[in-house]
Amino acid sequence: MIRGKISNSVIRRLPRYYRFLGELSSKGVARISSGELSARMGFTASQVRQDFNCFGEFGQQGYGYNVELLKNEIGGILGLYTPHTAVMIGVGNLGRAVAQHINFNNFGFQLTGIFDQKESLVGQMVKNMPIRSTATLDEFCRENHPQVAILCIPKESAELVTKQLIKLGVTGFLNFSHYDIALDYPNVLVENVHFSDSLMTLSYKLSNK
Amino acid sequence: MIRGKISNSVIRRLPRYYRFLGELSSKGVARISSGELSARMGFTASQVRQDFNCFGEFGQQGYGYNVELLKNEIGGILGLYTPHTAVMIGVGNLGRAVAQHINFNNFGFQLTGIFDQKESLVGQMVKNMPIRSTATLDEFCRENHPQVAILCIPKESAELVTKQLIKLGVTGFLNFSHYDIALDYPNVLVENVHFSDSLMTLSYKLSNK
Repeated sequence: MIRGKISNSVIRRLPRYYRFLGELSSKGVARISSGELSARMGFTASQVRQDFNCFGEFGQQGYGYNVELLKNEIGGILGLYTPHTAVMIGVGNLGRAVAQHINFNNFGFQLTGIFDQKESLVGQMVKNMPIRSTATLDEFCRENHPQVAILCIPKESAELVTKQLIKLGVTGFLNFSHYDIALDYPNVLVENVHFSDSLMTLSYKLSNK
Repeated sequence: MIRGKISNSVIRRLPRYYRFLGELSSKGVARISSGELSARMGFTASQVRQDFNCFGEFGQQGYGYNVELLKNEIGGILGLYTPHTAVMIGVGNLGRAVAQHINFNNFGFQLTGIFDQKESLVGQMVKNMPIRSTATLDEFCRENHPQVAILCIPKESAELVTKQLIKLGVTGFLNFSHYDIALDYPNVLVENVHFSDSLMTLSYKLSNK
């Protein structure tokens, strides 16, 4: 029951709400007011109410929100209960850590294939899945139609494999590489994770405080 | 030569400029116009000129920017040439990958210590540095005064160690944990890297396109 176009800043707050409500729920908290919720999250109460109003009615005036219900509503809005199939490209240090560290199932994704171009890695198991050769990526995608790719490879390879994956029907990317996908493919959905940009931003703040 | 207060969105674009100019420079490109630069980065030319004007005069009208000079100017603004000392806390899958994957020296930081609470890891080498016991963190910080901490630990540990580190004089955090440092310490500088939030945002976009 989404009302009109949701702003990017509201969308970016949803994962935080979801995470925080999950913590409350696991602590056995059944109900929370917008005031308490906002205080614990660093927003104002009216911000919280406005955010939730974008999606319909979640609470009753003066009675607060049911934590479990609200969490499930937000999870549904985030699309977490209808998993998107995903392949991971690149199982170096970073790819391996991402595969092992993140429980994709909890965040709306089902990892269906892991690929690397290094033949010496092919067949090794990561998260109970064999690493496949990128030489078999075309065939795999034609059979399994993954919706999303997680790119843990350098920029140059990312440019080539993105082109290949988009032709094969992939429509979303979690992009750890520095290749700017959105610039070449404005209609593709991309979330970038750039450690080095975060480091440089922190360096700026430290240098100019 | 920074002119007034720089907006957050300009600051966030600086690392991208820096990265892109570095690529141009390594390809031997000596000069670039704001038009070319903006086209390759997905901004408008006037946006590029406005951004750079925040920091003084980098180019001459109609003559473009000297790539190497501009890169070095932006690197200086980002504080990359006066490295901030940093400790890494947590050397599980994620911490290990971050330590091995990122060349901190290139982004304004000098990694001076790596810590884990698991005694079985203590003494192992990561990036030519021995993993130290978190039991020695107090002593290390009193002697070496690290400015920054990179947190690759779960939320509960992050809350405890952040308190400890702030007492010991740490003023900046690269935070991979879900502990919300800025909420408890509004004066501390924090950059968060939250994979799961990026995944959930991507899931939202895929579910609502």
